Amino acid sequence: MPTIRILIETDLRKVIDLDMDAINCVEGAFKALATQDVRMPPILRLDIDEFNGEVDVKTAYVPGIESFAIKISPGFFDNPKLGLPSVNGLMNLFSSKTGLLEAVLLDNGYLTDVRTAAAGGVAAKHLAREDAKHAAIFGAGVQAQLQLKALTLVRDITSATIWARDIAKAEACAKKASLDLGIPVTATTDGKDAASTADIIVTTTPAREPVLMADWVKPGTHVTAMGSDAEHKNEIDPALIGQADLYVSDSQAQTRILGELHHAIDAGVVSSDATFPELGQIIAQSLTGRTSAGQTTICDLTGTGVQDTAIATLARHRCDAAGTGVEITS
Amino acid sequence: MPTIRILIETDLRKVIDLDMDAINCVEGAFKALATQDVRMPPILRLDIDEFNGEVDVKTAYVPGIESFAIKISPGFFDNPKLGLPSVNGLMNLFSSKTGLLEAVLLDNGYLTDVRTAAAGGVAAKHLAREDAKHAAIFGAGVQAQLQLKALTLVRDITSATIWARDIAKAEACAKKASLDLGIPVTATTDGKDAASTADIIVTTTPAREPVLMADWVKPGTHVTAMGSDAEHKNEIDPALIGQADLYVSDSQAQTRILGELHHAIDAGVVSSDATFPELGQIIAQSLTGRTSAGQTTICDLTGTGVQDTAIATLARHRCDAAGTGVEITS
Repeated sequence: MPTIRILIETDLRKVIDLDMDAINCVEGAFKALATQDVRMPPILRLDIDEFNGEVDVKTAYVPGIESFAIKISPGFFDNPKLGLPSVNGLMNLFSSKTGLLEAVLLDNGYLTDVRTAAAGGVAAKHLAREDAKHAAIFGAGVQAQLQLKALTLVRDITSATIWARDIAKAEACAKKASLDLGIPVTATTDGKDAASTADIIVTTTPAREPVLMADWVKPGTHVTAMGSDAEHKNEIDPALIGQADLYVSDSQAQTRILGELHHAIDAGVVSSDATFPELGQIIAQSLTGRTSAGQTTICDLTGTGVQDTAIATLARHRCDAAGTGVEITS
Repeated sequence: MPTIRILIETDLRKVIDLDMDAINCVEGAFKALATQDVRMPPILRLDIDEFNGEVDVKTAYVPGIESFAIKISPGFFDNPKLGLPSVNGLMNLFSSKTGLLEAVLLDNGYLTDVRTAAAGGVAAKHLAREDAKHAAIFGAGVQAQLQLKALTLVRDITSATIWARDIAKAEACAKKASLDLGIPVTATTDGKDAASTADIIVTTTPAREPVLMADWVKPGTHVTAMGSDAEHKNEIDPALIGQADLYVSDSQAQTRILGELHHAIDAGVVSSDATFPELGQIIAQSLTGRTSAGQTTICDLTGTGVQDTAIATLARHRCDAAGTGVEITS
């Protein structure tokens, strides 16, 4: 009769925050992906068109991590009309050695938010100019807040701009970010203005047409695109991938299908068999990242199972240590 | 803050048994697969070779069923050396309308056992001769017991034989089955003898080489092969598929890859683009099943997400009605 630890969102918020520990955890996961015999199957995707819903299931086995997560992320985009959040989900954590269920992390997507933002921090740490000061965030949701915070953990960001189509949303997001981070954060609906003054740009939208155009990005900028995690999503102008000095993905097997890369391939800007460095290879220094301050770099993030396995295992360790959660024997 | 019902194996065993309700539930699921706009993505499969482990994730959305299950089945085949069961798992049940997690069914594979055996019952109900009396079961594990029981629910089975390589295991299984079902059940290690006297044969083994040869099967027999659920598994002689009058699958998209069909294709017995009826189409009477008592029929079962969604939803309804389980708010 195995004993399973049930952890609720408030338990998990107590032990996991978006901080350098989270960034280091996710950095280690990407490095493992590049250097170890990680098993990361293609994402399972269930579409429920009738209710404007989609569900992603991600997993990865990382040698040396004693557990693996199976993460289920439903996104049901009519939920706000019912007063419910669009995005939910949980992680199931299993022993890598026996396959026994060890913990159910009822995080409602919180750990995904943290590991996703942490990946943005890892990307900027390894790809942005050391002297990057000003950030532009496209989008005004939870990831806009968190991605900006992640940047401040890895670079000395002294100011930021939030872009959104709706100025009220941009202003609310900017105000909250400024209060949280203690830096001036402005709001705009002018994407060109936001992009052209930034050292680091992070796109965090569910856009189906590009919101960031190639000729808005000045040389030396680092761009992280993290909003596209499905075939139909597209945040950045394919031409930007063509003209960038360095394009990096979290997993090229995924970005070929789900990320910005596949739009660049479709547009004929990039050859369909071109290979590019993955973030883990840059971290492991098996491939070269930015080599000069004038280069434009792009990191295309679609979200990987190794991040889930890493953050869920960290959360479970901390909950074990703190005696948090409820144990159920089944 | 959604409320989630946590159900343990003992809760689920109280409300779900292998009976006509379970068979009807699974029959309805197969019919839906053939007649409705079901979404059933390919199985997600994670292999952890280092620990002789494999994990399958299955799901399906069935219009008209208000929930969908995501079922996780780990099989770690060194576990018995550690005194642990090889097969475990759980089901997560979500609202089809909102994607919110409604229940976590910590069944340790119990519901999978029931829905798998129920599928064998459904196959025999629609494909075996009405007057079938004698069953042969290949294998001596949990599914051997349950598949035989399922046959007794849909046909007037008056005797059975259990085949296994290890006579002690066959005898133990036969003894238990005889006690449970109140019919004579014999044990043998002679596959030809077992097969050639049977009206219905069910193979329930993890064999990697055929255990049931084509020339052992007399005309008029129905064969259900349910052991193969992975590329390397193969229970029945490919020639048997070539010579059968009717080959039926639970999901041809799956049996082409995972079931007996792909070995018949590899052996050149069946063309790789041949199409065959699916069980749901026979149930829905959109395609024809057995048309005479002399026909040999085969049903190739790999296990489908619609079965999981159907049985998990039934279990959850019954637990809701009985007030079973623990509610957790997260």
